Amino acid sequence: MPNQNPSPLRLGIAGLGTVGAGVVKIVRQKAALLTERTGRSIEISAVSARSRDKDRGVNLDAYAWEDDPVALAKRDDVDIFVELMGGSDGPAKAATEAALRAGKDVVTANKALLAHHGQALAELAEANGAVLRFEAAVAGGIPVIKALTEGLAGNEIDRVMGVMNGTCNYILTRMEDAGLSYDEAFAEADGLGYLEADPNLDVGGIDAGHKLSLLASIAYGTQVNFDAVELEGIGRVSIEDIRQAADMGFRIKLLGVSRLTGRGLEQSMAPCLVPATSPLGQLVGGTNMVVIEGDQVGQIVLRGAGAGEGPTASAVLGDILDIARGTRLTTFGQPAGTLKSVPAAKATTPAPYYLRLALFDKPGALAKVASVLGEAGVSINRMRQYDHSDDTAPVLIVTHKTTRAALEQALVGMTQTGVVDGDPVALRIEQV
Amino acid sequence: MPNQNPSPLRLGIAGLGTVGAGVVKIVRQKAALLTERTGRSIEISAVSARSRDKDRGVNLDAYAWEDDPVALAKRDDVDIFVELMGGSDGPAKAATEAALRAGKDVVTANKALLAHHGQALAELAEANGAVLRFEAAVAGGIPVIKALTEGLAGNEIDRVMGVMNGTCNYILTRMEDAGLSYDEAFAEADGLGYLEADPNLDVGGIDAGHKLSLLASIAYGTQVNFDAVELEGIGRVSIEDIRQAADMGFRIKLLGVSRLTGRGLEQSMAPCLVPATSPLGQLVGGTNMVVIEGDQVGQIVLRGAGAGEGPTASAVLGDILDIARGTRLTTFGQPAGTLKSVPAAKATTPAPYYLRLALFDKPGALAKVASVLGEAGVSINRMRQYDHSDDTAPVLIVTHKTTRAALEQALVGMTQTGVVDGDPVALRIEQV
Repeated sequence: MPNQNPSPLRLGIAGLGTVGAGVVKIVRQKAALLTERTGRSIEISAVSARSRDKDRGVNLDAYAWEDDPVALAKRDDVDIFVELMGGSDGPAKAATEAALRAGKDVVTANKALLAHHGQALAELAEANGAVLRFEAAVAGGIPVIKALTEGLAGNEIDRVMGVMNGTCNYILTRMEDAGLSYDEAFAEADGLGYLEADPNLDVGGIDAGHKLSLLASIAYGTQVNFDAVELEGIGRVSIEDIRQAADMGFRIKLLGVSRLTGRGLEQSMAPCLVPATSPLGQLVGGTNMVVIEGDQVGQIVLRGAGAGEGPTASAVLGDILDIARGTRLTTFGQPAGTLKSVPAAKATTPAPYYLRLALFDKPGALAKVASVLGEAGVSINRMRQYDHSDDTAPVLIVTHKTTRAALEQALVGMTQTGVVDGDPVALRIEQV
Repeated sequence: MPNQNPSPLRLGIAGLGTVGAGVVKIVRQKAALLTERTGRSIEISAVSARSRDKDRGVNLDAYAWEDDPVALAKRDDVDIFVELMGGSDGPAKAATEAALRAGKDVVTANKALLAHHGQALAELAEANGAVLRFEAAVAGGIPVIKALTEGLAGNEIDRVMGVMNGTCNYILTRMEDAGLSYDEAFAEADGLGYLEADPNLDVGGIDAGHKLSLLASIAYGTQVNFDAVELEGIGRVSIEDIRQAADMGFRIKLLGVSRLTGRGLEQSMAPCLVPATSPLGQLVGGTNMVVIEGDQVGQIVLRGAGAGEGPTASAVLGDILDIARGTRLTTFGQPAGTLKSVPAAKATTPAPYYLRLALFDKPGALAKVASVLGEAGVSINRMRQYDHSDDTAPVLIVTHKTTRAALEQALVGMTQTGVVDGDPVALRIEQV
């Protein structure tokens, strides 16, 4: 219970960008509330960032300054090392390791670090009796790591899904609502400062893939395996696909899906069609959503801001306050040594697919496409060919459930028929 | 960290209805998983229920039987007393108190018990170094108590809202979708076994009000005060109101809303209009939703099954596994002695209202109504009078934001004009 450990809990904060400054503000402004809730006072001992002189809108005079985050991590007056620098390697990794080796707890918002080194860091934390928490790394302010690790721990998890990159969802929403092309919506998001320095982290699905790999580890008790996430960005989604999908009652989302089946661990982050009336389909703009399906609880949907100063700082504080209250959890919900290493199963669960192709206007063209699908064992649920004024006819096909392998075979076959112009678009329809 | 306490965690389960039997099944069937996740084996020592002979679809032979739940609560071989009997007083209260006095942790699904005696029980738990957890008492499988108590603990909470009675939401959904009258939808829900033995617990808003009072205590650091919840059931919601609301882009929900303002603690559980396109507006059928708004995190929406064996057992297990992992939390998120006793503020926050009245067909009737509203300081945003074939004309008014007090004054004034037939319907429009 609180109040049994009246000593202050001392933070060392590395990284004073938007989120770091936000955490400092909350610790300063809500001191009484945080103490009331945890029974301990939360203090900041020292901070570190690249530039000491930058104005961050918060007074840092009372805190020791360290140029080197590793030195910060090892300070005697730091109980929790708060890592808000980012980056999968370099200073963030070195400082996190130094803190854990020194037996200090670590709270981080760094999805890349954990996606690449989660297993090793979890082992290091446990070997040193330290706690490593990362609520802020996934879906911003939504307490989804907590829900999955703790609240739903009595469940075997069947599926975890998520729209976890607000920038991609913003772009897709703007394409649908304003009829923008991908390039136009991308430029708009860029102008609003929504994109990472390397935009491919967002639109290539990498950032969201990092998050999915962390959720999968907790959900299935498996070692984090980001490299096995099937990644497909949103760059090939066209306004045409968005319109056709809408016309059939679907929306296109950059959707993460993970499942553990007898064939292995499926993790995919790719543009998918979801029913427009489902919670995922109704999610517009920069908001995040995570859907967790457990054998007991059924479907739980969590929705909230996935980024930004306040939401991310809220998640960082949640982890800090857990530690202040004495909660000591393993990193991924069970001892790191018991996390299973399972093979990757690439989208082996059958699903319906949406196909869009441009058919040369020749007699028998459609029959050739249909017969290629049939030969691959892919059956057609719905098909539409549209009126057209140029040499090719737009054709839409919704398949019945099929494996990705069968679909790939059909796609290869289609290009070999000579009646299809360019590469067909193929998007999975995720049933939610 | 797990594995530091290898002794088994021993449960005594009182109440073997649907949820109790569900908990027994999970503990039996998932023993290895639960141990992997917590580092401790979870065992059942003893059980108690009203009838020993009833077939509950689960083998209880391995467990000691107690006819008296108080005796169960005090057994030396019980570490956690799991209270799944229900009822705000009687055996549930006596056994919970006995367990806490004996220093045993308690996990309960009993919203009525905590809504009526939460403060005293929290004090008793703390005085005895015991933990009292109740995730299953609110919104079934949704880990909302955990989200509010822990994940969002760095926030000052601005508002908590919830649709937390699936039966009411089912009835309202069926009225809208199938055009049923309230009585028809009620009868249908009754036939499906959705109603409590005392239906007023559901349709009178009492059950949902219990839940709201628990969320408010955690959100605002206040003592549970169920008696101060403004309760209005769904019995007066007519199909006419549902249709008119839909026509204006709203849906009617039995919505709990709580806020802490300078005027005091607002808690209301009443039929409200919410935008049809909002997450709350889109919630149909028996599903629950809780919306939490914090100063840092913004709006978090949690959605899932609010009742049933699996979801409720999932929540009970969540609490048990927390304790197995060594997590020790205060009942309402801070020490019971620091929970504030604040005055109740009855809907003092201004809101727009929906009014429906039947106007006698006389010259000047509408002018009288409009002038009564104006005198009370209530201004009109939208107004419609419909064509009619009988003596009275249906009139709909949506007001601008007004206080409940001003609105009540206007409603009294309306009945005194002599031009309004019967009592006007007045429903708050909650802006979400």
